[in-house]
Amino acid sequence: MDNINSSDDIKKLNLEQIKELGNEIRSFLIEKVSKTGGHLASNLGVVELTLALHRVFNTPEDKIIWDVGHQSYVHKIITGRKDKFDTIRKLGGLSGFPKSMESEHDAFNTGHSSTSISAALGIAKARDLKKEKHSVIAVIGDGALTGGMAFEALNDAGSSPNNLIVVLNDNEMSISRNVGGLSCYLSKIRTEPFYFKVKEDIDIILNKIPAIGKSAVKALDRVKGTIKYMIMPGILFEELGFKYLGPIDGHNIAELENVLTRAKNTKGPVLVHVCTQKGRGYTYAEENPAVFHGISPFEIETGEVIAHKVPGYSDAFGREIVRIAQKDERVVALTAAMPHGTGLDKFSKTFPERFFDVGIAEQHAVTFGAGLAKNGMIPVIALYSSFLQRAYDQVVHDVALQNLHVVFAIDRAGIVGEDGETHQGIYDISFLRHIPNMAVVAPCDYNELAKILEYAVLEHDGPIAIRYPRGAGAEKLFDTPDVKLGQSLLIGEGGDVTIAAVGNKVGVALEVAEKLKKVGLSADVIYCRFIKPLDSNTIINSIQKTKRLVTIEDNTIEGGFGSRILETINQKGINVKTRMFGYPDAFIPHGSTKELTHIYRLDPDSIFNDILKEISKSRI
Amino acid sequence: MDNINSSDDIKKLNLEQIKELGNEIRSFLIEKVSKTGGHLASNLGVVELTLALHRVFNTPEDKIIWDVGHQSYVHKIITGRKDKFDTIRKLGGLSGFPKSMESEHDAFNTGHSSTSISAALGIAKARDLKKEKHSVIAVIGDGALTGGMAFEALNDAGSSPNNLIVVLNDNEMSISRNVGGLSCYLSKIRTEPFYFKVKEDIDIILNKIPAIGKSAVKALDRVKGTIKYMIMPGILFEELGFKYLGPIDGHNIAELENVLTRAKNTKGPVLVHVCTQKGRGYTYAEENPAVFHGISPFEIETGEVIAHKVPGYSDAFGREIVRIAQKDERVVALTAAMPHGTGLDKFSKTFPERFFDVGIAEQHAVTFGAGLAKNGMIPVIALYSSFLQRAYDQVVHDVALQNLHVVFAIDRAGIVGEDGETHQGIYDISFLRHIPNMAVVAPCDYNELAKILEYAVLEHDGPIAIRYPRGAGAEKLFDTPDVKLGQSLLIGEGGDVTIAAVGNKVGVALEVAEKLKKVGLSADVIYCRFIKPLDSNTIINSIQKTKRLVTIEDNTIEGGFGSRILETINQKGINVKTRMFGYPDAFIPHGSTKELTHIYRLDPDSIFNDILKEISKSRI
Repeated sequence: MDNINSSDDIKKLNLEQIKELGNEIRSFLIEKVSKTGGHLASNLGVVELTLALHRVFNTPEDKIIWDVGHQSYVHKIITGRKDKFDTIRKLGGLSGFPKSMESEHDAFNTGHSSTSISAALGIAKARDLKKEKHSVIAVIGDGALTGGMAFEALNDAGSSPNNLIVVLNDNEMSISRNVGGLSCYLSKIRTEPFYFKVKEDIDIILNKIPAIGKSAVKALDRVKGTIKYMIMPGILFEELGFKYLGPIDGHNIAELENVLTRAKNTKGPVLVHVCTQKGRGYTYAEENPAVFHGISPFEIETGEVIAHKVPGYSDAFGREIVRIAQKDERVVALTAAMPHGTGLDKFSKTFPERFFDVGIAEQHAVTFGAGLAKNGMIPVIALYSSFLQRAYDQVVHDVALQNLHVVFAIDRAGIVGEDGETHQGIYDISFLRHIPNMAVVAPCDYNELAKILEYAVLEHDGPIAIRYPRGAGAEKLFDTPDVKLGQSLLIGEGGDVTIAAVGNKVGVALEVAEKLKKVGLSADVIYCRFIKPLDSNTIINSIQKTKRLVTIEDNTIEGGFGSRILETINQKGINVKTRMFGYPDAFIPHGSTKELTHIYRLDPDSIFNDILKEISKSRI
Repeated sequence: MDNINSSDDIKKLNLEQIKELGNEIRSFLIEKVSKTGGHLASNLGVVELTLALHRVFNTPEDKIIWDVGHQSYVHKIITGRKDKFDTIRKLGGLSGFPKSMESEHDAFNTGHSSTSISAALGIAKARDLKKEKHSVIAVIGDGALTGGMAFEALNDAGSSPNNLIVVLNDNEMSISRNVGGLSCYLSKIRTEPFYFKVKEDIDIILNKIPAIGKSAVKALDRVKGTIKYMIMPGILFEELGFKYLGPIDGHNIAELENVLTRAKNTKGPVLVHVCTQKGRGYTYAEENPAVFHGISPFEIETGEVIAHKVPGYSDAFGREIVRIAQKDERVVALTAAMPHGTGLDKFSKTFPERFFDVGIAEQHAVTFGAGLAKNGMIPVIALYSSFLQRAYDQVVHDVALQNLHVVFAIDRAGIVGEDGETHQGIYDISFLRHIPNMAVVAPCDYNELAKILEYAVLEHDGPIAIRYPRGAGAEKLFDTPDVKLGQSLLIGEGGDVTIAAVGNKVGVALEVAEKLKKVGLSADVIYCRFIKPLDSNTIINSIQKTKRLVTIEDNTIEGGFGSRILETINQKGINVKTRMFGYPDAFIPHGSTKELTHIYRLDPDSIFNDILKEISKSRI
C-alpha cells in the first residue's frame, strides 16, 4: 500500500498483489476509522469493487459517480488522498463524501441517495454531444435503488442510446435491512442457483427438439418451477432497456474485472449486478453492518465503541413516541430507511403493526402518511431535515393542501457536524414556514419535546412539524405550561434587549442573557415554541419596552425564523432595530458542531459580544 | 343520463343501457367542454373504465384515487355533480380535480402526478388496522407511472400484504407522447398479440411431454422469439410483488367489469392493466390527444378552438431559447413531459439532439441537468413552478451545492387560474431564495425575458432561476439596459412612497404610480430584476427619501420577495414602514386569474386604494 500513490499504480499489480493490497486497505480502514469514527461497513464491502473499477477504468478521464458517497473511502485512498485520511470528516480535512473541489477523481458531489444514475446520464449525454470518448459509471446500492429518482433515471437511461454503466452494489442493506418488492426480487436473483442453468436448459430443449430426450424433460420441469424469475435474472432491468450482467461475486477481483471490461465494451446502457457483503473482512462489522454503517471510534479487538454516545434528541423522541402511542391506537410511525437513526427502533418493536419503514423513499413516506391520516390514523413521520427536502412537494400538495393531521418529526435539524454540507439541516424553517396550514415548532429541551410531541399527536389538528437537532440537549431548562397552539413563553425579563430564540438556541439565549447581566444589561428572553403560528404579541410587548430585537436560530437567516418575526411585526406596523443570528447564505462544510457553531458565531460568547457591539454602537 | 343521479343508478343498468349511457356521457363531455374549456381527451378515454369502476365498487365506502385527477370528470358526473358541471374550473364552481371538500366520493385530493399509489396504500393500511372492509383503488396513467414516487409506492405496496388495486390506465400518453424504458415495455405488452397464447403454449408443452408432437414444436419456436417479454406480460409488476391482470380493452365494459371483479376478490396487491384511447369517441381528440388534453372552448363540428390563445410567456421563452441556443452549441433544453406547455416544441425541432424530454420525472430532470452542466453543457430546464416543487432537494443538493451553471426556466409562476390550488405557482420565491448560490430573477415583460434569458444562459455562472407567469404579458414596458447581476432599475420617480415590484407586478406598480399621481402623490418605482442577489442600495436610497416602502409580488408574502427586502434592509440597519402585497398564507382556489387577482387585492385599483389608506392613516 505504501507504493500506491495513484490509480495508475493499481494497474501495475498482478492478481496476487492486488488481493494483498485489498487486505492492506481493509486493515488501514479499520485502523483509521476505529480512531476517527465514520462510515466503515459500506467501505469494507467495496474494497475489491473499487480496486477493480480503478484497474478497468482511468479516472479522472472516466467518471465514477458514487451514489450517496459514504462508500468512497477506498476510492479516496487510491486516488492520492491516503496521507490525508486522518483528517476525514474533520474541519478543513477530507470530506466523508465525494467532492469535486477535493479531487478531480470525484466526478460528481453526492451525499443524498439515488442521484447517481441521473448525474451519470447527464455526463454521458454531454460526452456524446461533445464527441468525447470515456466511460461513465454510476455505483449505486440496492438501498439507494428504491429511491424514486433512481427509477426515473433508469427509465430514461434505459431508452437512451448512450453508453452508460450502472454498477448495482447489492449488499441487501441500505443502512438498515432493505424493504420492498425490489429487494425481494434482487434477493431471488441472488439466492436461486439455477439462473444460468435455466438459460442453458432452454437452449438444450430448443436445439434437441424434436429429438427430445429425458434430460430435456427434466429441464422443462425445472423451467416450470422457476420460469418466472429465472429466464432472465435481470429481467426487470432488461425490460427498462438495460443490458444486464450478473450477478457477480463482488469480492472476486478477477471476475469483477472481467465483467467490468465487458460492460466497458458494451454499447448502450448496461447494468452490472455485483453482490457484496457489508463489513466484509471485519467480523464485528460483518455481524452488525447497521452498527458499523456510521460508527464512533471503537476498540478494534472487541468491536466495542470507545465513547458511548450520550442519549440525544432521537432517543428522547423514540421514548416519548412510544409513551404517546400507548394512549391512542391511531398513532402510527413511519421512517424512510432510518429506524435506528430516528430512534424508532423501540416503537417498531412495541407496535410492529403500527410501524412502517418504506425504504429510502421520502416522497412515498409523506404521501403514504397522508393516506393513513385521510383514513383516520395519526401518522408520525420521522425524517432527517435534509432528507425531508426530497418530499417538499408531497408536504405541500398531499398533506398541507388537505390540512391532514400528519406529524413530522424532523431530526438532525440545524448543524449536523461531520457529515457536512449535504446533511446540514439548516433550511427546513425556510422551506416549511410558507406552507399554508403547516405549524412549525422547535422544542428547547427533552421535556419540551415530550410535551410538544404529545400536543402535536393527541391535540393538534392539521400538519405540524417538530424540528430538533442531532445529538444531545438539555433534559429540562425551565418549567413550562401546557402547550397551546402558537404560544411563546417569556422566560427571562429585562429592559435593554429582547432576545427571541427557537429550539436549542433557547438555552444559548439564556446564557447570553446571563452574560449581559454581568455587564449591567438585561434582556427579555422569549422562547418561541411555535415558529408558526407565531405569537407576535409577546414579542411586540417586549420590543415596545426594549426597542431592540435579537433573534437566534440554527437555520439559515434567509427566510428563517428571524425573517418570519420581521415580517410578522412589520405587518402589525412595528419597526425595530433587529439583529438576526443564524447561518449565512452559504453551504456549511463539515467539522464538529462545536467548531462550526463557533466559526459561524452562534455560540453564547460570540452572540454576547456581537450584541454588546451593537448596543454600544447605537449608544454613541 | 337524465336518470343517473348517483353511482347506485349505474348499477341498475344492463349492458346495453350502460353502453348507451357511455355515449351520452361522451356527448355531454364534448358539449360542455367545448363551451367551458378543460381537460377533454383524458376524460373521453376513461368513460367505460369509470362506469365499470362504479358498477363493481361502491363509493364512498370503496375509495377511488384518481392520479393527477384531470380524468375525474366522468366520475364527478355520475356521483351527483352533473348539474353543476357548467361551473367546472370556474370561481366557486366544481374543481377540475378531485376534492374531498366537494364530495365524499373524492377519496383523496390530487393534481400533481404519481401520488395515487402512495395515498391508496396509506388508506388501505389504515383500513386494515381499523379492521374495516372496503376496496381501495388507485387509477394511474402510464405517464404518471414514470414519476419516481409511483415506483417507490409500487415497491412498498408490492411487498405489503394489504389488499390494494392499482388500475394502470395505459393510453401511451402523458400529456405528450410518453418516453422511457417503461413506456417501451408497456408498448411491447400491448402490441404483441401472443402473450396469452404463449402462456397456453407452455402449458401444452408441459402437459404433452414426453408425447411431444408437431404443434408443441411450433409452440416452442414461437416461445423462442418472444420468451423474454411474453412469458408474463406483466413480469415487471409481478417482480415487484403485484398480481398482474391484463392487458384489457379499456372500452369493453363487460371485460372491464370482469377483471375489476377479479381484482376485487384478489388478496394482496393487484395491478390491472387497462388499455384506453385518449380522446375516444371524438375524432378530433383521437387524432390530436395532446391538443385536446387541456383545451380552450372549441367548435364541436370542426374541432377548431374558438378563441385562439394569445401568445404568452411560454411562447416568448420558446422563441428566445432557440435564438440563444443558435449562439452557443453547449445550450441544451430539458423538460419533464411538457414540450408543448413550456414552449420548447420549436427547440425540440430545431435542435433535436440537444433536447431532452425525460417524462414526468422532475427530480431526474434536475439532476440529469446537473450532470450535463458538470460535463460542460449549459442546460436550460423548463418546468412549471408548482412541479419544480418535486425537485427542491435536487436543486439544493445536486445543482446549487456544486454551483453548477443550470438555468431554470420557471413557467406558470404566480397565479395560474382555472387549474386551482394544486397548480398555483406562488411558492417558488419562498422555496428558492434561501438556497445558497442560487440567483432568482423575474422579468417584467417579453423584452426583459429575452434579455435576462440570454444573460442567464450565456453570461451568468452558477444556478439561476427565471420565473415568469402563465399567459400573456406586455411586449415591452420600457427600455432597459444590459443585464447585470443583482441589478434593480429605478423606472419611475417620486417622493411619497417607494414601490418595489417583481415580474408581472412591475407593470401593476407603474399603473399604481399613475393613479397616485392623479391624487397628487408620487412614487419611486423600482423594478427588482433580481430577487436574489438583491440590489439593496437602489431601494435604500429611495426609502431614505420616501420613508415608506411598498412591495408587490405574485408569490405568497410568507418568505417571499417583500420578506427578502425587509431582511436585507434590516441587516443594513434600515427600518421603514413597509406594506407587502402578495398572496396570503392560504391555498388559492381556482378561478380566472383576473378574478383571483382582484379578490386577493393585487390589481392596480386595490393596491392603489390600500396604499392610499395607509398613507392617510399615518398622516392623521
